[in-house]
Amino acid sequence: MPTGRSAKWQARHDAIVDTSARVFAQRGYHATGITELCTANDLGKGALYHYIGSKEEVLAAIHDRVMDEVMVGADRVLAAGGTPSAQLAMLGDELLDVIHRYPDHVWVFLHEFPALTGERADKFRVRRREYERRVEAVLQAGIAAGEFRDVDPRLTAMAWLGMHNYTYLWLKPGGRLSARDVAKPFADIFIQGIRNGA
Amino acid sequence: MPTGRSAKWQARHDAIVDTSARVFAQRGYHATGITELCTANDLGKGALYHYIGSKEEVLAAIHDRVMDEVMVGADRVLAAGGTPSAQLAMLGDELLDVIHRYPDHVWVFLHEFPALTGERADKFRVRRREYERRVEAVLQAGIAAGEFRDVDPRLTAMAWLGMHNYTYLWLKPGGRLSARDVAKPFADIFIQGIRNGA
Repeated sequence: MPTGRSAKWQARHDAIVDTSARVFAQRGYHATGITELCTANDLGKGALYHYIGSKEEVLAAIHDRVMDEVMVGADRVLAAGGTPSAQLAMLGDELLDVIHRYPDHVWVFLHEFPALTGERADKFRVRRREYERRVEAVLQAGIAAGEFRDVDPRLTAMAWLGMHNYTYLWLKPGGRLSARDVAKPFADIFIQGIRNGA
Repeated sequence: MPTGRSAKWQARHDAIVDTSARVFAQRGYHATGITELCTANDLGKGALYHYIGSKEEVLAAIHDRVMDEVMVGADRVLAAGGTPSAQLAMLGDELLDVIHRYPDHVWVFLHEFPALTGERADKFRVRRREYERRVEAVLQAGIAAGEFRDVDPRLTAMAWLGMHNYTYLWLKPGGRLSARDVAKPFADIFIQGIRNGA
């Protein structure tokens, strides 16, 4: 995100990213042209390029929005403290909350990440790995404390991530279930599933 | 799949579906034209249309290939019998085996299903739901037998599916881990996680 821009510029930029996320989620990234982004954002090409450098920059901004939200949640969990079990339950709460609030961004995030190239692809991989390490760290802490059995932290983190991330297909704003309705039983399954001596 | 075709026609048709799955997985369905399918399959347009009716028909055939394999596995589990815990472990084995053997098909299946329209979309939804019901039935049997605690079968099936399906992002042929290497610890987590009185 460029620095030294006005708050008004930033707000418009963010609105363009949000609208574009909806368009990409509906039509697919590759099938969407700059012309469609102009129409959706009600801007001419010149005006659009005042806010965004390229279609791929918008895609990267969508990925960053998701990762920003996910890491804010993970930081909140870290600050809250508590047992590894409580930490893992809170991480699930936070992750499902992001998936529930940003259905279009998350759809694009999970489907279109291979379209990121060069430094943008590298940055995305680094950020995604950073989050995965937070989950692994909670698992490792639980194993060290004897609270969790001796699972493989990496493989178990992938199981946990799959269980939570995959809700993007059916956990929708205005749907029957809230993020919390899902997070609680998921945490119950997962934490009982790795508990020591269960 | 049309009937009354020769075995040779069928073999060529299936090979075209497999090659197209690779192209769609790499480039995306919408970004791939009939011309690219011709090049990838080393066929002229007329020859290609001798085997497939349209690009969407290829997409539907890819979805059917995945569902065929998944349901063959689910039928094998049903025929094998055993406790609900054993059934669930076997379902996981079978599902990860399909994900591991068909990385391109599964990628297309999980990413491009919104591109199916009309009857093809309906058929896909019915088949996917049929498989989900198999997972739910095992969970319900386990609850009825007192082997599993009183979880919500639908939500728990979605948790189980997410945990397993999401491996398509990292479980690859020739990778460090086999399908079985992943299926066993996943089953351990999930079955302990829903076990009664654990």
